Amino acid sequence: MTTPTATLLISCPDRRGLVAKIANFIHTYGGNIIHADQHTDFAAQLFLTRIEWQLEGFHLPRDLIAPAFNAIAQPLEAKWELHFSDTVKRIAIWVSKQDHCLFDLIWRQRAKEFTAEIPLILSNHPNLKGVAEQFGIDYHYIPINKDNKQEQEAKQLELLHQYQIDLVVLAKYMQILSQEFIVRFPHIINIHHSFLPAFVGANPYHKAFERGVKIIGATAHYVTADLDAGPIIEQDVVRVSHRDEVEDLIRKGKDLERIVLARAVRSHLGNRVLVYGNRTVVFE
Amino acid sequence: MTTPTATLLISCPDRRGLVAKIANFIHTYGGNIIHADQHTDFAAQLFLTRIEWQLEGFHLPRDLIAPAFNAIAQPLEAKWELHFSDTVKRIAIWVSKQDHCLFDLIWRQRAKEFTAEIPLILSNHPNLKGVAEQFGIDYHYIPINKDNKQEQEAKQLELLHQYQIDLVVLAKYMQILSQEFIVRFPHIINIHHSFLPAFVGANPYHKAFERGVKIIGATAHYVTADLDAGPIIEQDVVRVSHRDEVEDLIRKGKDLERIVLARAVRSHLGNRVLVYGNRTVVFE
Amino acid sequence: MTTPTATLLISCPDRRGLVAKIANFIHTYGGNIIHADQHTDFAAQLFLTRIEWQLEGFHLPRDLIAPAFNAIAQPLEAKWELHFSDTVKRIAIWVSKQDHCLFDLIWRQRAKEFTAEIPLILSNHPNLKGVAEQFGIDYHYIPINKDNKQEQEAKQLELLHQYQIDLVVLAKYMQILSQEFIVRFPHIINIHHSFLPAFVGANPYHKAFERGVKIIGATAHYVTADLDAGPIIEQDVVRVSHRDEVEDLIRKGKDLERIVLARAVRSHLGNRVLVYGNRTVVFE
Amino acid sequence: MTTPTATLLISCPDRRGLVAKIANFIHTYGGNIIHADQHTDFAAQLFLTRIEWQLEGFHLPRDLIAPAFNAIAQPLEAKWELHFSDTVKRIAIWVSKQDHCLFDLIWRQRAKEFTAEIPLILSNHPNLKGVAEQFGIDYHYIPINKDNKQEQEAKQLELLHQYQIDLVVLAKYMQILSQEFIVRFPHIINIHHSFLPAFVGANPYHKAFERGVKIIGATAHYVTADLDAGPIIEQDVVRVSHRDEVEDLIRKGKDLERIVLARAVRSHLGNRVLVYGNRTVVFE
Repeated sequence: MTTPTATLLISCPDRRGLVAKIANFIHTYGGNIIHADQHTDFAAQLFLTRIEWQLEGFHLPRDLIAPAFNAIAQPLEAKWELHFSDTVKRIAIWVSKQDHCLFDLIWRQRAKEFTAEIPLILSNHPNLKGVAEQFGIDYHYIPINKDNKQEQEAKQLELLHQYQIDLVVLAKYMQILSQEFIVRFPHIINIHHSFLPAFVGANPYHKAFERGVKIIGATAHYVTADLDAGPIIEQDVVRVSHRDEVEDLIRKGKDLERIVLARAVRSHLGNRVLVYGNRTVVFE
Repeated sequence: MTTPTATLLISCPDRRGLVAKIANFIHTYGGNIIHADQHTDFAAQLFLTRIEWQLEGFHLPRDLIAPAFNAIAQPLEAKWELHFSDTVKRIAIWVSKQDHCLFDLIWRQRAKEFTAEIPLILSNHPNLKGVAEQFGIDYHYIPINKDNKQEQEAKQLELLHQYQIDLVVLAKYMQILSQEFIVRFPHIINIHHSFLPAFVGANPYHKAFERGVKIIGATAHYVTADLDAGPIIEQDVVRVSHRDEVEDLIRKGKDLERIVLARAVRSHLGNRVLVYGNRTVVFE
Repeated sequence: MTTPTATLLISCPDRRGLVAKIANFIHTYGGNIIHADQHTDFAAQLFLTRIEWQLEGFHLPRDLIAPAFNAIAQPLEAKWELHFSDTVKRIAIWVSKQDHCLFDLIWRQRAKEFTAEIPLILSNHPNLKGVAEQFGIDYHYIPINKDNKQEQEAKQLELLHQYQIDLVVLAKYMQILSQEFIVRFPHIINIHHSFLPAFVGANPYHKAFERGVKIIGATAHYVTADLDAGPIIEQDVVRVSHRDEVEDLIRKGKDLERIVLARAVRSHLGNRVLVYGNRTVVFE
Repeated sequence: MTTPTATLLISCPDRRGLVAKIANFIHTYGGNIIHADQHTDFAAQLFLTRIEWQLEGFHLPRDLIAPAFNAIAQPLEAKWELHFSDTVKRIAIWVSKQDHCLFDLIWRQRAKEFTAEIPLILSNHPNLKGVAEQFGIDYHYIPINKDNKQEQEAKQLELLHQYQIDLVVLAKYMQILSQEFIVRFPHIINIHHSFLPAFVGANPYHKAFERGVKIIGATAHYVTADLDAGPIIEQDVVRVSHRDEVEDLIRKGKDLERIVLARAVRSHLGNRVLVYGNRTVVFE
């Protein structure tokens, strides 16, 4: 599967002939489809599809694919994204003091579990600078308090611009981003340490312990202005018992957080996630 | 394991020598312990234990065990329950219109997955009378509306008394019990069709669909005056995806509900659940 | 989704333009595709797809769909099946002495979790005749021993013919079918009470206990001449511990068996399972 | 929970009064029990227990606990181990070329998920020397081939002795140890990349792919002379589908391997694993 591919993620009002129309577009130029999946949301009367084809043997030059497909998409009132598998996305990982998700993402990137570059780590604490150095990644320490949030967010945006970042991963960055920030940079994945929508907000493990639940979870979601309410990409859970103190929940939760966040990042980077409304379709 | 056993469920302030004191009480009379488990809640400074021993060869007559143990328990400020494995508890199953949990509990009782009698089914709808007849169980139809709740609850209590019921299982009984009722009959297990505390209240599957979660759950808990907030006995989950419509969540949820409720009822009937605060210890 | 649909399950050597060709076939006659999924097995160079469309508004009469599609399929060297959603399949459930899967399948069919008729229960023991009567299903008792297997299988085949059975579900039928039988009636789903290929053959729970595993499983598969080696449709597992005796494994396993078998039967009846080699694609 | 504790792991023929006898021993010297759990294997007529108490306030000096308890254990024909929570065990991690379990164990040790020192990494390949250096751990490269196995194992044993190693963790060390080695150093935990006893031996992911399973697993076990047949400490699984190629199984399996191995090592280091026959009791 190492030859480059193109992927279209499309959502449009449902109507007859959509599959044929899109498949024909690719077939016309000799494309070999290697993944095609669709979903119809009947309540919303919405057709959602992901289609991936090999660029080898595809007669249309890369820079003409978008305009050519646009001519098809417009009459269908389709929203669409076009991605090329050999475009390496650039990730900024944001952390506070905990290193488990950071280590995990770096390890997976080095192990080629997903294709991306990680040129930037950004934190409101200086603690993890050593990890950044260990792996040769730039580390920017931008402390946040009530008074300086606005100016610090300006610095953060400037860094994202400077490092040409495509995706921000909040890997246990324990700060809330302003609505203005999210509007300007909307490609943000967060890991929340609970089975959302249970235990929204701070200290979910303490709340889970208080409530006496028998299972805890973690949730990876896109960040929206509504705290912990963005479209969910992935969730997973682990069983706990009365023997587990809060610190055991935290420890067990770390494994969940690492895995759930990694799966979400991998799906996103593989152009497998289509957001509509406040929901996601994750094409597998 | 078919010879009768006695079980003590004990909670008391933690102090030195508790295990020895309790084990000695049983050993003094020649009891053979077949299960002993303990848990210390260090935050609450509370010692919780379950101890089960064979009555065969135990020199103390059954009716003297409670007073004899009480003499030990009082100075320890212990709360305790004594149960005998050959005392068959009597269950009333309460239903509305859905039959899956009802069928499941009846099947498990017949298959001897737990030891209990089910002499009574009670419902606010007439729909499942046929199931009751099929298995030779009395069925009482007690319709509930805003105006008659108080008098109907009186009838329900009267039936519980008349049938000598030890445990009420709300097997998808879609009504809220009054605080007065719960005070008078506190041994009630409910199955809630969500991963509590997510989606408290009505229509959890619809809410789960709306939120776009990737996992749904079910929760069995003791009923308290606080809706869906009682001590959790058991929870389990199942993965869902964008392909699942609300009716798929409902269908998948039914399997969860059956299994989670059955496990909770089985733990309760095996005298394995110790409630303290709003939490449970489930001794396995 | 209650209007009737047609479904094609297709496997053929991979080549360019397959998606377009098939989608165009349906679009030509005005069909509205409601589910389309494909999988490419790159090692086998095989293209596998499931495509489902609404018959309402489809201009080609039902009896012409197969010949029309055949003209397309032949040059592609495709194997294919055509199914209509309103063709109600007829199931024979085969049992020995255990009733949990039997009860469960009947309950699900009544609850419309899948569309099928169950006109026949067949057993090598008389024990479950009462269950059959309870639900008004014909029960045939055909005892099997070493000497009479051949003639009894002839009777079984005759019954399948007489009742116009489309699918046999071995719901804990603890007998091995002869190769000759399977050749004559190849549509058979079995539930094996282990996580295959672990613990092939008899007494898997005893073997699992002996081995001291921490998880047990169940496997639903199509029956082939090779014992417990047919294509796997579905598997699931549950955690066990040192506290679980063999009888606990059996009890916990029953829940697995019910759920795994039901999911496999549901996928099969929904025409979602495509077998190739000794593998299945289960289109979800 | 940071004050030092002592832990007894005991197995002996079942008889009356064992719990009392052991609890009294600890109470006599003023010990405060913080964890006591027992299991009776009725088939084997064996009593197994773990009991942990605080050393603070325990009147018996540490070096007298073993001889004092021995006087109690001998008449009971008990096998027992005594551990102190502040004795830091020393681990040697053995690897081949894969680094995921290695990284994971080092990270957890640094994060204090378990208490141990890791002074030694040993490998039959030079590849992971860089990781060892990164974390300041000694790395010994001992290549193995058919001819030099005996002398190389002598070197390995010498290193274990020299570094005062208590536990060897085979973190994807793809070599079989000789029976002689295991006899001389029996404290070895291995991670096998399948759901044992399925897919014993080499290339389990390839075998799993061939068999078309819907779930894959990983197994942590103590190493015995019988390949992949030692007592199982922990297992876990993850769902796969037809979409997963062998390399996807390998990728998904890595997460399983990390977690299953880490849990097993943590249980072992917490003195929570009692081996008897070819089984384990893992006291939680």
